[in-house]
Amino acid sequence: MADINARTETDGPRGSGMTVTTGPIRGSRKIHVGPLKVAMREIMLDPSCAEPPLRVYDPSGPYTDAAATIDIQAGLPEIRSDWIRARGDVEEVDQREVRPEDNGLKGPDRSGGVEPFPNVRRRVLRAKPGANVSQMHYARRGIITPEMEYVAIRENVGRAELREKAARDGQDFGASIPDYVTPEFVRDEVARGRAIIPNNINHPESEPMAIGRNFLVKINANIGNSAVASDVAAEVDKLVWSIRWGADTVMDLSTGRNIHDTREWIMRNSPVPIGTVPIYQALEKVNGIAEDLTWEIFRDTLIEQAEQGVDYFTIHAGVRLAYIPMTAKRVTGIVSRGGSIMAKWCLSHHKESFLYERFEEICEIMKAYDVAFSLGDGLRPGSIADANDEAQFSELATLGELTQIAWKHDIQVMIEGPGHVPMHKIKLNMEKQLEACGEAPFYTLGPLTTDIAPGYDHITSGIGAAMIGWFGCAMLCYVTPKEHLGLPDRDDVKVGVVTYKLAAHAADLAKGHPAAQLRDDALSRARFEFRWRDQFNLSLDPDTAESYHDQTLPAEGAKTAHFCSMCGPKFCSMKITQEVRDFAAKQNAPADTFIAATSEADAERGMAEMKDKFRLSGSELYLPTT
Amino acid sequence: MADINARTETDGPRGSGMTVTTGPIRGSRKIHVGPLKVAMREIMLDPSCAEPPLRVYDPSGPYTDAAATIDIQAGLPEIRSDWIRARGDVEEVDQREVRPEDNGLKGPDRSGGVEPFPNVRRRVLRAKPGANVSQMHYARRGIITPEMEYVAIRENVGRAELREKAARDGQDFGASIPDYVTPEFVRDEVARGRAIIPNNINHPESEPMAIGRNFLVKINANIGNSAVASDVAAEVDKLVWSIRWGADTVMDLSTGRNIHDTREWIMRNSPVPIGTVPIYQALEKVNGIAEDLTWEIFRDTLIEQAEQGVDYFTIHAGVRLAYIPMTAKRVTGIVSRGGSIMAKWCLSHHKESFLYERFEEICEIMKAYDVAFSLGDGLRPGSIADANDEAQFSELATLGELTQIAWKHDIQVMIEGPGHVPMHKIKLNMEKQLEACGEAPFYTLGPLTTDIAPGYDHITSGIGAAMIGWFGCAMLCYVTPKEHLGLPDRDDVKVGVVTYKLAAHAADLAKGHPAAQLRDDALSRARFEFRWRDQFNLSLDPDTAESYHDQTLPAEGAKTAHFCSMCGPKFCSMKITQEVRDFAAKQNAPADTFIAATSEADAERGMAEMKDKFRLSGSELYLPTT
Repeated sequence: MADINARTETDGPRGSGMTVTTGPIRGSRKIHVGPLKVAMREIMLDPSCAEPPLRVYDPSGPYTDAAATIDIQAGLPEIRSDWIRARGDVEEVDQREVRPEDNGLKGPDRSGGVEPFPNVRRRVLRAKPGANVSQMHYARRGIITPEMEYVAIRENVGRAELREKAARDGQDFGASIPDYVTPEFVRDEVARGRAIIPNNINHPESEPMAIGRNFLVKINANIGNSAVASDVAAEVDKLVWSIRWGADTVMDLSTGRNIHDTREWIMRNSPVPIGTVPIYQALEKVNGIAEDLTWEIFRDTLIEQAEQGVDYFTIHAGVRLAYIPMTAKRVTGIVSRGGSIMAKWCLSHHKESFLYERFEEICEIMKAYDVAFSLGDGLRPGSIADANDEAQFSELATLGELTQIAWKHDIQVMIEGPGHVPMHKIKLNMEKQLEACGEAPFYTLGPLTTDIAPGYDHITSGIGAAMIGWFGCAMLCYVTPKEHLGLPDRDDVKVGVVTYKLAAHAADLAKGHPAAQLRDDALSRARFEFRWRDQFNLSLDPDTAESYHDQTLPAEGAKTAHFCSMCGPKFCSMKITQEVRDFAAKQNAPADTFIAATSEADAERGMAEMKDKFRLSGSELYLPTT
Repeated sequence: MADINARTETDGPRGSGMTVTTGPIRGSRKIHVGPLKVAMREIMLDPSCAEPPLRVYDPSGPYTDAAATIDIQAGLPEIRSDWIRARGDVEEVDQREVRPEDNGLKGPDRSGGVEPFPNVRRRVLRAKPGANVSQMHYARRGIITPEMEYVAIRENVGRAELREKAARDGQDFGASIPDYVTPEFVRDEVARGRAIIPNNINHPESEPMAIGRNFLVKINANIGNSAVASDVAAEVDKLVWSIRWGADTVMDLSTGRNIHDTREWIMRNSPVPIGTVPIYQALEKVNGIAEDLTWEIFRDTLIEQAEQGVDYFTIHAGVRLAYIPMTAKRVTGIVSRGGSIMAKWCLSHHKESFLYERFEEICEIMKAYDVAFSLGDGLRPGSIADANDEAQFSELATLGELTQIAWKHDIQVMIEGPGHVPMHKIKLNMEKQLEACGEAPFYTLGPLTTDIAPGYDHITSGIGAAMIGWFGCAMLCYVTPKEHLGLPDRDDVKVGVVTYKLAAHAADLAKGHPAAQLRDDALSRARFEFRWRDQFNLSLDPDTAESYHDQTLPAEGAKTAHFCSMCGPKFCSMKITQEVRDFAAKQNAPADTFIAATSEADAERGMAEMKDKFRLSGSELYLPTT
């Protein structure tokens, strides 16, 4: 098969120093389904298998669309603008003026040649006085928004409702995963608070997606740097790179200078929801002195970021004064940066957290832009020793209390979770979260299942992530190999995303998510039939799969060979199965013995084809060494 | 701290083309405990923490002993010879003469300059007529062997019995893990068949180790190549490399030519048990034509390998004729190479497997050398679609039946398991294995929890491995990133081993293995106190941890800095905890609030030290940017 869709890396336009990776993921193409043009990816398969292309969920946005024109300086098309305005509940207002301290107390650093985003909006949207523009508010009034419709089509990956329901194979621990996602189901889940659609009205570039236990498990990638100017380009590149490999949302955790400008570049070029931790920026505005933080500075930062379009805010409002001493006996104390900032503030003033006390005021801001809460776990355990302790669960109880307050305002909420947790304590985290927070979506970092493997913490945490995803966690925040050691580079971001993508998929399989197994089965059939290119293209990372294959068998011919480097051409365990099938046929075994797991037609076709292949190679199991 | 134990890579002796990595693992030293000189590793910690060195389990053998002289041409010292001979039940016999076909039908290939192992034994050991030299046989007669004593000390990692039993924190699913391993406990576990000590009497170089649910979870690394001559050196290097990073046993899966010679080099230089799949070599002797295999050729191969010292044989005696048609409807048929060889043989002759029919004769050979069975799962699932199917569980029932036959002969047995299994079906595998096979140790490949991530299958399988290890699997066979794609190189071997080591450790933690958490806690304390070098050295892979750290903060000073690259020097969440402790102290909180998880003394020392550090840096949480 001609490699017509090989990845092409193109420079960003206008020689800006901004470059991102564009072009289709190898062997696939972007499609847009239905009148809402829901973006998906189709993986083409070798004509020999006579299988239709496989559709997969695709958060990579226009960057992987061969037909799209990418202009980073202009930003992405505003696909949701009409939907937002059509609801008639928003007004245009002047954007809060950007102040020097928005880019750090010393103002922006232009030394790296980084300019403010050129196509910045001067007018932004806000709910009309008294209005609430959150998806939850619509949902609770029975309104199905285009965002909800988009999510429904997206979650079904374009499938029509199946005539016959396949027997569900999985253990879902009380989830309510439907066979087919209808817009009404999405609405109902959002109304109940069991799912969120993080879509700030000032981020109309975003493709709607849902985070909830009854949808596909999602993953988040963190980017952001201690901004020296030249890093802005690197962060935009990481954004595009992380969604290319499957990140469903991205958090911009930038600190330092240029923080406002960096975010603007990211927002305008992101097709996925962007989350932030606003206290990080607020801290920069007071030169890193936590005790100098005030509600007014924080509030102003929320509005600044909400106007830019941030889709969810991590707010550590559960770090209450009374809980802080509970961390004194811990091995690793407070490891959350946001949590420690608030702890420092509370201790210095010996006062209750202003995030907790002003929580209803925060809700008023959230509902004016539809920013979702991601209630931060500032007291999460930073080591196996500290897992599931009093501080952690006390905070979780408070997050549950705050969830109810947010829901009173019809604000979307998800709950952040740990951290470092040994395997036998993971399930309790999920159970307590569901109970304390009324089934609001859980969003966990890992958890890491041991502390002893720095350099491999994408794996120590991928284990915990797959498990908690299975138990019901809605979104998994990735961990890269650099965790605890340094800042992730581009390669680390990719490894982190792919690791979490496979963990999320393993969770979907185990939950019995309908159709999750289609991709596994398609890949396994390709493997069994020695369709090497299909095997690469169906994988989460076709480039790595092919390059690993080529390290052992580099010849082009090896990609169509009916053997692999494990057994070599002389004896192949895969090939024996054709003999088995023939044998079983001769034995007059019942007909269903011959049905491959997909369909009878597939099996018959496969058998006929395999026979042809054997005939060509001399009716032998052993092919001559090439 | 001076880096006195930095790794040194030295060439093998005599310019043989054989080179292996020697020298201590960074920051640690080899120790030998007690009169049996049980090998362990001690990780030295920075004097500032006043903690004793941390002892860890260490399968790396003399290669990491600074005091050892390594001569690959001579082989390792025979530490068990006296123990074996002292039992008075063995006799010396002439070694079966090496035939050309032992190195493949065309004989050995000397073109790569590879010679037979020079220091080969001409006389080998065998049980006296009527004797049974298996550890299980001794155990059942109430004899505690030096091997069992060695294992007891090793499993305790040199700890004396704790005066006060720590509260056990874990979920062990019915395992019987003792607080302290006595030699009698080891004997009893071996006698019951719940653990094996794979130690062929012709492999006196091996350091005894146990595989069983009530001991630390072990890992296996596969090496071996489709031997072109030059690969022998690479395989010896991979052996030493894989045990350096923690492989507890190694399987030599070599095929092709030089197969006998390769094995001899590996055996004589291995301090860990070596396993093989004898049918691979038998197949080479009949030029790869499975139907030409005979019991006589197979039997002769068993004796050849037993005389060389192979410690366990994978034997696919459960692939019965009647089960083969059950694989016809599978997506990926039979994926085990040994399983497909036997399926091919059974189909060609339309006869029951000679491995099954001759099983008692095989037992007679095993008991004469103390080779353990690793009963192969020739019908394991090769895809998610095929997991837990009729073929797989039918074979498992037969493996249970064969276990009872082997035990009748006092032969040690473990059971191989899958494969590809989604998370929700893993536990059933463990439960069925325990039930069908009378608690004989389970030894699984992964399992892989999804099929869609070739290139990352060390991770898809590491997830399943950690889980099944927790549920009770005794040994985890590693999977490298090259699985399904190509042959692992040195780097892949290391990644596979470290991934499985962390999975096994996560399982030990979750099972509540006593003292498993000591290393996590030591590393977390080092992390919290910014003892960077201790953090690296306590990790599973100090070299990678340090190199990742240095990519972001390369300066030597950064290794003693009280901050990391995540937050930078201005604000550090770790440091806030000292303030929290001071605050809690001022609040007159109860005394135990201040006890760090280790001990009160530690906590007090830690607090005093941290205070000193703060004083030195100006009583500020914020250190100046360097």
